[in-house]
Amino acid sequence: MEELELLKERILNSDKRAVSRAISIIENGNSVSEKLLNSLYSNIGKAYRIGVTGPPGAGKSTLTNQMTKFYREQGLKVGIIAVDPTSPFTGGALLGDRVRMNQVSNDDGVFIRSMATRGSLGGLSNKTVDAADLLDAANFDIIIFETVGVGQSELDIANAADTTLVTLVPESGDSVQAMKAGLMEIGDIFVMNKSDRPGADAAVMSLKTILTMKEKKSTDWETPIVQTVANTGEGIENLISKIDEHREFLKSQNLFEEKRKEKLKTRIKEIVALLLAKEVWNNEREALLDNELNKALKGEESPYTIANKILSNYKQLLTV
Amino acid sequence: MEELELLKERILNSDKRAVSRAISIIENGNSVSEKLLNSLYSNIGKAYRIGVTGPPGAGKSTLTNQMTKFYREQGLKVGIIAVDPTSPFTGGALLGDRVRMNQVSNDDGVFIRSMATRGSLGGLSNKTVDAADLLDAANFDIIIFETVGVGQSELDIANAADTTLVTLVPESGDSVQAMKAGLMEIGDIFVMNKSDRPGADAAVMSLKTILTMKEKKSTDWETPIVQTVANTGEGIENLISKIDEHREFLKSQNLFEEKRKEKLKTRIKEIVALLLAKEVWNNEREALLDNELNKALKGEESPYTIANKILSNYKQLLTV
Repeated sequence: MEELELLKERILNSDKRAVSRAISIIENGNSVSEKLLNSLYSNIGKAYRIGVTGPPGAGKSTLTNQMTKFYREQGLKVGIIAVDPTSPFTGGALLGDRVRMNQVSNDDGVFIRSMATRGSLGGLSNKTVDAADLLDAANFDIIIFETVGVGQSELDIANAADTTLVTLVPESGDSVQAMKAGLMEIGDIFVMNKSDRPGADAAVMSLKTILTMKEKKSTDWETPIVQTVANTGEGIENLISKIDEHREFLKSQNLFEEKRKEKLKTRIKEIVALLLAKEVWNNEREALLDNELNKALKGEESPYTIANKILSNYKQLLTV
Repeated sequence: MEELELLKERILNSDKRAVSRAISIIENGNSVSEKLLNSLYSNIGKAYRIGVTGPPGAGKSTLTNQMTKFYREQGLKVGIIAVDPTSPFTGGALLGDRVRMNQVSNDDGVFIRSMATRGSLGGLSNKTVDAADLLDAANFDIIIFETVGVGQSELDIANAADTTLVTLVPESGDSVQAMKAGLMEIGDIFVMNKSDRPGADAAVMSLKTILTMKEKKSTDWETPIVQTVANTGEGIENLISKIDEHREFLKSQNLFEEKRKEKLKTRIKEIVALLLAKEVWNNEREALLDNELNKALKGEESPYTIANKILSNYKQLLTV
């Protein structure tokens, strides 16, 4: 417990190694992590949280790097959480991320961490937000959630961020695909990256057309499209100022608190679900399930019947 | 209840309109749907389930259409469930799907349904599998789950299918992106679609290289790469025969039952989670949460503390 107190102090003093250790504790998900987060909770809420999403190949990593450089020049500290649907082929952080980490790891004002989503059904968003809370307590000013691929991460990230960027490239039909993929509704700002490619202006035009289809009131946020060339840094300054505008918009409309409240609500519901799952799925009920599965496979019982049996078993034991 | 009996009979007689109505009942998720599924459960298990995944723009819809044509020529009935992260921009099924539906809706042996995933946190996989079970009971031989975009659907679909296809196109780096996106681990068969494009052979080579990185035993399934041009139908016959091979492989290794058992287990756990969430989040505890949220926003209480309070409240009331 004294050790926990020490770790807490080091985090509050912006010690990157302490943050790193604390995120590992969160990833392991034992009872210490809950205590640590509870003790730090009064110190969070200051950091601004940005989500960077978009289809694979849109240049999200390069964009994140350029934004980080820009914020660093303003003297702001940046924490990056790369949400990574780990593949068993690579067994952890991807090569590209390792290279990137080496590039900036000497800068005390930047913290980068890949968090694996593998097997964390329902728990991804929760643990990445826990990690962001730690970085917040450690006085990082900007926290960027970067999604590495597909998977449920896109929507989770949108739920964790104050401002969500959707990154696209001027390939023909990319915006239509993004609309199909449900990215249109989560974007507060659209980034047309690789805008030095042919067809960029046409792509922006068609994206604009799609965005006009969105029903909205005159007081709603006017979703901007920012053109960038992340490789050269072109357009990054404009992008950052649009993020600032969105932040000011949220504050001026009293939406900032409201949005955070909504996100917190979702998060608490997720935590309740995780705690319940832990309680229900003890060895005894895992064995009960294994036993019933054979009946289901023979068509004797439906999955719903079995689920209700397990629930009754859980509730009966509670009343004893 | 008599009406339910009638609906059941019509489903067992392969009545498409009855199936359609039953899926709407499932989507609404009331108690009738559970009764219906329970009553049909002894009639399912015959259909073969294929998942079609891949990044946006890879041609998944065209591929699904061509496979459907092929199966129809063999006299097999095909049910297609398009898992659609519905956008508020379009408010439902996408235009492309509507066009497609009109094309085949005159064929009694084909059933197509878009299922929206919007707001169905954790429930997507469950409802699409319920719909597949209905189609199975209605004597459809092949059920194809087609993902429309990103979102958690990819992994859910892999969990619902017997054979999962990952569709790629020969764009430079597409396979690396797919690996990053976690698609590599869910593919039983890889489809290099649009293989008439330049660079297709090189893309297949690099995909092969990536696949050799996968650790496996000599008895494991040898993941094939099939080249197709879905627009013209080229390679579809070969693809179907690879699906057959995979099916035979699963059966010969006794993996078929084992895989279905594993999937059923995941599904029952999801149902338990959904039932518990329904019980916990009654009006009283929603109000309790709203009340506590303000404390969390002020930093007075952590999300974990609140989650535990709500859980205690739920369990206390159970013991009364």
